[in-house]
Amino acid sequence: MTAEIICVGTEILLGNIVNTNAAYLAEKLAASGLDCYYQTVVGDNAERLAGVLKCAMERSDVILLSGGLGPTEDDLTKETVAKVCGKKLSVDDHSMERIAEFFAVRDIQPTENNWKQAMVPEGAKVLDNDNGTAPGIILETEKNRIVLLPGPPAELIPMFEQQVISYLDALTPGVICSRMVKLCGVSESQVEDTLKDLIDGQTNPTIATYAKTGEVHIRVTASGENAKAAGKTIKPIVKELKSRFGGDIYSTREETTLEMAVADLLLANDLTVTTAESCTGGMIAARIINVPGVSECYKAGLVTYSNKAKRKFLGVRKSTLDKYGAVSSKTAGEMAKGAALLLKADVAVAVTGIAGPDGGTEEKPVGLVYIGCCVKGELTVKEYHFSGTRSQIREATTSAALILMRSCILKYFSKVTFGKK
Amino acid sequence: MTAEIICVGTEILLGNIVNTNAAYLAEKLAASGLDCYYQTVVGDNAERLAGVLKCAMERSDVILLSGGLGPTEDDLTKETVAKVCGKKLSVDDHSMERIAEFFAVRDIQPTENNWKQAMVPEGAKVLDNDNGTAPGIILETEKNRIVLLPGPPAELIPMFEQQVISYLDALTPGVICSRMVKLCGVSESQVEDTLKDLIDGQTNPTIATYAKTGEVHIRVTASGENAKAAGKTIKPIVKELKSRFGGDIYSTREETTLEMAVADLLLANDLTVTTAESCTGGMIAARIINVPGVSECYKAGLVTYSNKAKRKFLGVRKSTLDKYGAVSSKTAGEMAKGAALLLKADVAVAVTGIAGPDGGTEEKPVGLVYIGCCVKGELTVKEYHFSGTRSQIREATTSAALILMRSCILKYFSKVTFGKK
Repeated sequence: MTAEIICVGTEILLGNIVNTNAAYLAEKLAASGLDCYYQTVVGDNAERLAGVLKCAMERSDVILLSGGLGPTEDDLTKETVAKVCGKKLSVDDHSMERIAEFFAVRDIQPTENNWKQAMVPEGAKVLDNDNGTAPGIILETEKNRIVLLPGPPAELIPMFEQQVISYLDALTPGVICSRMVKLCGVSESQVEDTLKDLIDGQTNPTIATYAKTGEVHIRVTASGENAKAAGKTIKPIVKELKSRFGGDIYSTREETTLEMAVADLLLANDLTVTTAESCTGGMIAARIINVPGVSECYKAGLVTYSNKAKRKFLGVRKSTLDKYGAVSSKTAGEMAKGAALLLKADVAVAVTGIAGPDGGTEEKPVGLVYIGCCVKGELTVKEYHFSGTRSQIREATTSAALILMRSCILKYFSKVTFGKK
Repeated sequence: MTAEIICVGTEILLGNIVNTNAAYLAEKLAASGLDCYYQTVVGDNAERLAGVLKCAMERSDVILLSGGLGPTEDDLTKETVAKVCGKKLSVDDHSMERIAEFFAVRDIQPTENNWKQAMVPEGAKVLDNDNGTAPGIILETEKNRIVLLPGPPAELIPMFEQQVISYLDALTPGVICSRMVKLCGVSESQVEDTLKDLIDGQTNPTIATYAKTGEVHIRVTASGENAKAAGKTIKPIVKELKSRFGGDIYSTREETTLEMAVADLLLANDLTVTTAESCTGGMIAARIINVPGVSECYKAGLVTYSNKAKRKFLGVRKSTLDKYGAVSSKTAGEMAKGAALLLKADVAVAVTGIAGPDGGTEEKPVGLVYIGCCVKGELTVKEYHFSGTRSQIREATTSAALILMRSCILKYFSKVTFGKK
C-alpha cells in the first residue's frame, strides 16, 4: 500500500517555517509499513490544492494532509478535499461541543469563525484535537483514504500518535512493529559497512539507518500476523546488532536520548557530575539538564571562556597555558580535574577548542578540540578534529563530550563488554 | 515569473532528515521576487523523478532541484533531467580538473564513480562547487530554466549565494531588494495588528512577518528598475517601522541575531557580562558564546542547578530559599547580584524556573520563570509564564533572558528612545 504527504501552507512555501511535519509523518509512514514516494507542499489556494490532491489520489492509496484547518477564510483544506471527493460539509455536534468547551476552559469568547472548524464532510470520521480547536478528519473514498491533520506540530503529533497510527496499521495486513537501536561514537559509513550483509536483499525485517550528530540510529521494522510474530522476526536482528556493535549501543528504546542514557548511567551508579566548558559555553550542561530529574546528579557547572576564568575557578596552571596554550590536551585535563575538585563531583567533563570562524592557526586549526573527562580521579583526554560552521563544531563537540563521558564511566565500572569499533 | 522546488532524496521520504533545503530555497525565491507555488520531494527513482519534473516544467518557469548529484549509481538527478530535456551528457573538462584537484588537496584517491560527477548535459552552464565534488548545473530549455544543486546544505548554500542568486535576479525585470527588520519582545499578533494598514493591499513593497521564539522578523521586499529605485521604495517603510516599533527593533540587518545584538551592545559600551542559570542550564551562555569574538566581554558563567550551588557560588541566602523558594523573584535577584559580584561583571543575568514536565504546583506551575538582570548594580527582575515542552520552555526562557538583558542595558544608558509596546 502506498501513501503520500501533502502539507498545506503559504508559510512553508515562503520559507517562513521548516516543514518538520513532513519529516515526522514520513518517519511514521515508514514505521507503519506504507511506501511513501512523494511529499508535496502547496499554498492555501483552492485550485492548486485541488490539482495536487487529484494527482495524489491517482497515484497513492493513502493521503495525509496537514495544515489549512484553521478558522480563517484562508484555511480551506477541508472545503477543498470535500469538493474534490464530492462530499457536502455539515455541522458535527460532537466537535461543536468540544470547541465550546475548549474556549470555556480558557475563559475566551470564540469568534464566529471558530464554528467553521466544526464542519465535517459527510461520512467522515472525526479525530478529536486535545490541543486545539481544529478536529482531524478521515475521509474514505472508493480508492483512497484521506487523513486531514492540523498544521501546528503540538496538535498534529498527539493526534497522530493517539488516533491515526492504529488506523494506518490496520490498513496493512497483519501488523508492523519496529525497534530502534541507537549507537554513539560510530560513523554512518562504519555502521553501513558493518551491516552490509544484513541490509543487502532485506525484505522482512528491514533495516534503516539514520545519521545524527555523533550518533547513528538503526530502525529494525518487521511485519507479521500479529505483534508477537513481528517481534519474533525483529528479535534475532536486534541480538545480532548487539553482538556486532556491543557497547556502542546506548539504547534500544525509541524515546531515550544520548543525554538520557548518560544521566541514567550517572544515577544508576550514584555519581555526581559537573561540566567545565570553553568553546561549547554551556551547551553540554544544557543538554544534560534537558533530562527531567537530573538534579539528583547535576548540581552545578562552569563556563570558563577566558584563560583567567580557567585559572581562577579551575586552577589551570599559568605554566600550562603559557607552554601548551588554552587549546591543548594539558589544559583540558587540568580543567576536568579542577572542576571535579571545585564541585566535588565524581565525574567532570571539560572542553576547550577552536570553534572558529577566526582564531585558527596552521598548528591549531579551527575545529581542533580537546575533551577531558575525569571519573573518580581517573583522567582521559581526547583530541578531535571537527569541521563546519561555528555552530556545527560546537554541536559536534557537545555530542562528543557526552559520548566520552559515557565511555569513561563504562570503562571505570567495566560493566559492559565493549564491542569492536 | 513562477518557480518551484524539487528535492530529490529517499532519506527525506523516509523522514531520515528534515528538508531544510526547501525552506532555504523557498525564502531565497521569495526574496528574488519569484512566485513559488509548489515544493515536491521525490526519491532517487528515475521514473518518478521524471514524472514530477515533467509536471513542474508544465506549470512553472524556473525549477530548482536539489540532491541526487552524488557519485553513486543511486544518484540520477542529472541523468533524468538530461533525458527529460532530450540532452546528451558529456565530460566537462573544467569539472574533471576541479574534481581531481579536490582529491589531490585532500590526499585521497578518487574512485571510478567520482568521474561520473564531471558529466554535464550539453549546452548547460556549470556551477563550481567549492565544498564538494558535484558541480551544479543550469540547463535552459525553450520554456524552462532548470537549476541542479547538490543536496548537502554545506555545498548547496554557498553555491546558491555565489552563483545562483544573481542568475535568478536577472530573470525578473528590474531588481528585487529586501530589507530585514528584526524585533524582540513583541508577539507576532501584536506586530500584525500594528502593521495591518501597511500590509492590507500591499503590492510594492510587500511586508512579510516571520515568528521566531521571542522574536518577530519583518521582511520588506521591493522591486524596482535598479537597486537604487528599489531601495527608495523600501526606505520609507523601514522608517515607518522604526517609528512604530522603536526600541523593540534590535537590528535591520539580515545576518544579525539577537545574541549578536546583545554582544554588540555590551562591546560598544565596554561592558563585561556573566550568566547564572538554573532551569536553562547553560543555554543562555551557549547562545552568547555562539557570537564570534565575544570573549572580549564574556569571561565566565555558572550553571547553578541545585539550591546548594546557588548558595555556595552566588551567595543566595538560605532564608530567601526557605521563605520564597528557589523559583522566586527574590532568588532570581540574589542570583543576578551574586553572579555580578563573584565574576566582577558589569552585567549579570540569572534565571530560575520550572521547566517541567514535573515539579509544578498549583501555586508555582510548570512554565513559571523568573529572570533577574543586574546592570552596574541596578537590578530588574521579571516574572514569566511560558508553556510547551521542557525544551520549549527552556528556549523561550533563553530568548527572554537575552531580551531582558538588552532592555536593561538600553534603559541604563537611555541611549535609545523606547517605542510603544
